[in-house]
Amino acid sequence: MVSQKYKELLGAKSVIRQMSEWAAGRAKEIGMENVFDFSLGNPSVAVPQAFTDKMIELLQTRDTMELHGYSQSQGIPAVRAKFAAYLNRTYGMAYTAEHLFMTTGAAGAVAHAVRAVTQPGDEVITFAPYFPEYNHYVNQTGAVLKVVPADTRQFQINFEELEKLLNPKTMALLVNTPNNPSGTVYSTETIKRLAQLLEAKQQEYGHDIFLISDEPYRDIIFEGVDAPYVSKYYDNSLSCYSFAKSLSIPGERLGYIAANPNCTDSELISPMCAQISRGIGHNCPPSIIQIAVAEVLGLTSDLSVYETNMKLIYDELVQLGFEVVKPGGTFYIFPKALEGDAVAFCKKAMKYDLVLVPGDTFGCPGYFRMAYCIETEKVRRAMPAMRRFVELEYNMKRISKPAKDAD
Amino acid sequence: MVSQKYKELLGAKSVIRQMSEWAAGRAKEIGMENVFDFSLGNPSVAVPQAFTDKMIELLQTRDTMELHGYSQSQGIPAVRAKFAAYLNRTYGMAYTAEHLFMTTGAAGAVAHAVRAVTQPGDEVITFAPYFPEYNHYVNQTGAVLKVVPADTRQFQINFEELEKLLNPKTMALLVNTPNNPSGTVYSTETIKRLAQLLEAKQQEYGHDIFLISDEPYRDIIFEGVDAPYVSKYYDNSLSCYSFAKSLSIPGERLGYIAANPNCTDSELISPMCAQISRGIGHNCPPSIIQIAVAEVLGLTSDLSVYETNMKLIYDELVQLGFEVVKPGGTFYIFPKALEGDAVAFCKKAMKYDLVLVPGDTFGCPGYFRMAYCIETEKVRRAMPAMRRFVELEYNMKRISKPAKDAD
Repeated sequence: MVSQKYKELLGAKSVIRQMSEWAAGRAKEIGMENVFDFSLGNPSVAVPQAFTDKMIELLQTRDTMELHGYSQSQGIPAVRAKFAAYLNRTYGMAYTAEHLFMTTGAAGAVAHAVRAVTQPGDEVITFAPYFPEYNHYVNQTGAVLKVVPADTRQFQINFEELEKLLNPKTMALLVNTPNNPSGTVYSTETIKRLAQLLEAKQQEYGHDIFLISDEPYRDIIFEGVDAPYVSKYYDNSLSCYSFAKSLSIPGERLGYIAANPNCTDSELISPMCAQISRGIGHNCPPSIIQIAVAEVLGLTSDLSVYETNMKLIYDELVQLGFEVVKPGGTFYIFPKALEGDAVAFCKKAMKYDLVLVPGDTFGCPGYFRMAYCIETEKVRRAMPAMRRFVELEYNMKRISKPAKDAD
Repeated sequence: MVSQKYKELLGAKSVIRQMSEWAAGRAKEIGMENVFDFSLGNPSVAVPQAFTDKMIELLQTRDTMELHGYSQSQGIPAVRAKFAAYLNRTYGMAYTAEHLFMTTGAAGAVAHAVRAVTQPGDEVITFAPYFPEYNHYVNQTGAVLKVVPADTRQFQINFEELEKLLNPKTMALLVNTPNNPSGTVYSTETIKRLAQLLEAKQQEYGHDIFLISDEPYRDIIFEGVDAPYVSKYYDNSLSCYSFAKSLSIPGERLGYIAANPNCTDSELISPMCAQISRGIGHNCPPSIIQIAVAEVLGLTSDLSVYETNMKLIYDELVQLGFEVVKPGGTFYIFPKALEGDAVAFCKKAMKYDLVLVPGDTFGCPGYFRMAYCIETEKVRRAMPAMRRFVELEYNMKRISKPAKDAD
């Protein structure tokens, strides 16, 4: 008999996926170029040529058994050593290869990290708005996800609400900065305050509380934004990274966990993750991708397009009278909807071929997410549609006339 | 607090890993070329040039966003369609893309398959000798692995013992043919008899019993051997494959599950596996590898070297008086040790720089595994060491004098 648990999950399609499927259907009617699809967080800037060149060079010059051979379950040792050295250089840390575990993207990193530092029944706290897949990662381990309501003023941390949720069963916190969906970057002040609170609670409860930091957008930071490296401020921290967004290679599934050298059992986390991999049959990310990425560490795609897009959208939304926090990074923005029911709001937007995702999906009703990892030209063309939508559905007018109205 | 479960697992290093670590240490003393390491099942024949050429061509010509972009969780649809067509052509099946789920190797395939067709508490039956990682794949799902003792006469199936283990809690059987570690291929007669028995038991128990067929060695079949495609003989079957051995790309982690089109919920298995992936943060195997492999389907490395090696070893072992079943495929052979305690036997072999793995690891004490995926030249040089070992430790002489004794 097939598993009832997974069969039942089939009914619950993700809202993001539903929106993007609607967009694909609509594109068939009016052309992809006329659907303003802000639903999916799919990188849109090209993979750097230097990465492609490195891949070709490896294929042309390396022994095939070395290039495509089994990696250790923890990842290729030489690759892990390079990643550790890069992090030390960039963030002033003291990682060695022993602290690194190579994963299939940030998803694999977070899922493994949660499993490594919790037992079934433990509580893991995260902060709204949050990536909905966290529910799956945490539930699968037998731990329980608790969500701190959003600080909708700044999308930093609502400490008052956090303190209400902390209790002796809290074994880990899961933060995501720069944040999907808000685009907010936690400030040094926020991280320091969080670290202090956790230190105190560790003392009070007499056990470790791990801070799992999900950082796939770490390299997409906008000009002048204070973007601390989370692990620098708290010993019991695990950094989870992915090259999906920074190199535009989401399909190649490469990420890592870096265990803070000062955390409890810091050199056991990586081998424990290898044991976790055994049970799920995961083993290790692809060898050639590990080797190629290690050779171009520090390289990124041209990420500046995301800041250009952000400014266009943010300025327009402000002009239209939206309540919106200016993103500090990522390629997301998370404005307040113009009616209490963000699902209804996003449905109305579809009439204008605008595909927006209601914040309910991210544990923050009344808001909506726009993923602006699309071409700048299309962002420009979407703004008149946004203006029409807001004017016709909510009778709101732009504060000043647009410089050049494309419609 | 870190997970006690995974911390405790760190103590239990795999025997195969221990043997191979000893071999690496010994190699530092006397040179790698003088250690006859038969411990690891690592492919040793080069990746086909056509695969490397295809990878380079893709990197030079394809749009990078298409090549490295997100794959659907089930795998890239066009890739799955190609795999289905290939299987239909080769084995006379009727798969569509909907029946295929792309995995990280056969390990990921088996782990997902078990989870897809069992609930916690269910029983899964496998057959000694068996790949020890099955314990991890099954335990992690909450199901219980039951092991049918080996048919040491032929390493086919011990049906008498199987019938004793079958009961209403049996929800799946896990077979591995061609087999690691025995090298045996289940005959058409064996598979037909197994299918008949399972059909009868499904009737008797009133529920499905899935047959999970782990087939990473499906393309390494020796001359004249009867090697049926398991799924052809039983509807409720899931084929698990990997390209690790056939293309010598174990590090790139590509495999698949093919759900028999006639199995219960045949079109739900693949989407259910995608739900399983969500929870473990696995998502999908690397895009570029999916695309490249789909373009060279049917291509394999030069696998003939494994048969050459098998013959050399098999003939020598027979001459030395070992009880041994002739392998029908893979790159393994599984002779009976010359004393009851195969661990002691393998330890003594180390004195002759022979690295063998005791059968205890595979649920079959008293036997040992040799993985002959090494250079033929080295297999030749290892035979005199084997003769010395057998003569000096067990006072056994070769039946006829070796044609040309290299030592």
